[in-house]
Amino acid sequence: MSLAEFALIDRIRARSRARDDVVLGIGDDAALLQPAIGHWLAVTADTLNSGVHFPPETLPEDIGWKALAVNLSDLAAMGATPVWGTLALSLPEAEAPWIDAFADGFFELADAHGWQLIGGDTTRGPLSLSVTAFGQVPYGQALRRDGAQVGDDIWVSGTLGDAAGALWLWREGGLDVTRAAQDDGMEYLRQRLLRPTPRVTLGHALRGVANAAVDISDGLLADLGHVAARSGVRAQVWSDALPISPALAHLLGNDVARDCSVQGGDDYELCFTAPAHHRDTLHALALGVSIKCIGRVVEGSGVYCDGYDGLRGYQHFGDDDAG
Amino acid sequence: MSLAEFALIDRIRARSRARDDVVLGIGDDAALLQPAIGHWLAVTADTLNSGVHFPPETLPEDIGWKALAVNLSDLAAMGATPVWGTLALSLPEAEAPWIDAFADGFFELADAHGWQLIGGDTTRGPLSLSVTAFGQVPYGQALRRDGAQVGDDIWVSGTLGDAAGALWLWREGGLDVTRAAQDDGMEYLRQRLLRPTPRVTLGHALRGVANAAVDISDGLLADLGHVAARSGVRAQVWSDALPISPALAHLLGNDVARDCSVQGGDDYELCFTAPAHHRDTLHALALGVSIKCIGRVVEGSGVYCDGYDGLRGYQHFGDDDAG
Repeated sequence: MSLAEFALIDRIRARSRARDDVVLGIGDDAALLQPAIGHWLAVTADTLNSGVHFPPETLPEDIGWKALAVNLSDLAAMGATPVWGTLALSLPEAEAPWIDAFADGFFELADAHGWQLIGGDTTRGPLSLSVTAFGQVPYGQALRRDGAQVGDDIWVSGTLGDAAGALWLWREGGLDVTRAAQDDGMEYLRQRLLRPTPRVTLGHALRGVANAAVDISDGLLADLGHVAARSGVRAQVWSDALPISPALAHLLGNDVARDCSVQGGDDYELCFTAPAHHRDTLHALALGVSIKCIGRVVEGSGVYCDGYDGLRGYQHFGDDDAG
Repeated sequence: MSLAEFALIDRIRARSRARDDVVLGIGDDAALLQPAIGHWLAVTADTLNSGVHFPPETLPEDIGWKALAVNLSDLAAMGATPVWGTLALSLPEAEAPWIDAFADGFFELADAHGWQLIGGDTTRGPLSLSVTAFGQVPYGQALRRDGAQVGDDIWVSGTLGDAAGALWLWREGGLDVTRAAQDDGMEYLRQRLLRPTPRVTLGHALRGVANAAVDISDGLLADLGHVAARSGVRAQVWSDALPISPALAHLLGNDVARDCSVQGGDDYELCFTAPAHHRDTLHALALGVSIKCIGRVVEGSGVYCDGYDGLRGYQHFGDDDAG
């Protein structure tokens, strides 16, 4: 498919916006970029496979959005500003309508963040998308997993468990991921699964305020567990403090909703810790996203959540992700 | 395979050396890197799929080497120094011996170039390896495809067609890629296919000397065609000037050897153009790799090679690569 292949790359390239700091974009042996002085480069790489990280029937525009969103979410969790990245796309067939729809979703999110695609590769094979995304963060201001301090509050953004709830409904046959749901609550959950919002603005605002941060991709317990392990502390979570959307509670009931919020992955909200004296600051940030205090950092190790002791995090529905 | 998955990542991480400019390596939401002042960042991404870019029975240590080599070759073609990169690895099963052998080959080459793995993702699926590699090159000194000038000599490094010759022998059943060949010439070709040498040192030396450069991954005609197209010139190649190894000529005969050298891909030698007044400089560079003048840049468009007019470049043996 070599000729179609080049046409395919051109089709994707034509959609990418041009940043001033890209000296040379797609089309040479490598792209050339001008890193900002005084900044670290943040780099993350995540792969989505069909049938593992999203239902096989998911629409290409939603796949495009999500493939980039999960990577921008990692940059958000570092407090970094997204700048550039690459895409390795494996496709069973190179069909122009599929590519165009994929690009619609991918570049809708890319453009919203001023992020430029600067390279990649397309090969024939089972549908798989690997994005490597770069961000920039001023020296010394990155949010890391290893900075949580005893006494810190534990916070999360948005609501938890919505994506897991949507998957639960999809598995039960109650949710069609390929079309808008009639029910408003159902549609809300569907959007939360297919179109997660990377919390980039919140990540910026947390620089200099939060001591540690992580994005919730594998579930609150699993991801907060990484923070606790790397910081050498214990995370104490109050299960009745977890933010749950009305839609999730209504459609799945309080008990299942709670389970989803504790263990469900794929929400891409931020979980962070901050000293108690920053409480007012945090509430005043007015970031367009709600944040809620859900626990406290204490001495010890591991994550404790009343009623959920000993449970591990959510596995992606195909049981197959490295995080 | 989640627990095995984390063990697998740890297994790979333990093998990666630590560069001083890596502030934070694998293990957080993103790695943090300190770009060198006064340098551009060069970024390339290439995917290898089993059965498409290498024979399915290829040993893991050879797959590891090649997955990185094809990317470092792209950096070499830009005149860039390899620094860091990510690996997205899709594996049918996470078997420790396979991973260890893969890491042997991958890090043998990485360490030789002081290149550090700083992130990645592992998923279950058909064997596929996507590397995104970063290099650094001083401002304004990158070798690009668009700089060839009328009157330039056209040069290539090493010998051409060896990898294509090895694949030809493998297809005919005459070459086992999984073990050393008894015949010295056969073994030479096998190594050329499985363990290509990225010409990083040559790429450095060509900064300020060459006007344009490309690495030969899809075949001389195809890759030189990119240079001609982007530079707005015509490349005139003398087919009897092409450097052919004694092993290739001996095992495949002069005619097939010539075909391989003109159209064969996967050699990962550099092809570059330079003004005639640099001829003595180039021969004096003593780079540990032979270079040979094979043609001239003239006015016009396209690539002309006597006896091969109208032919396109080599397709990877599975007919499925984007370059």
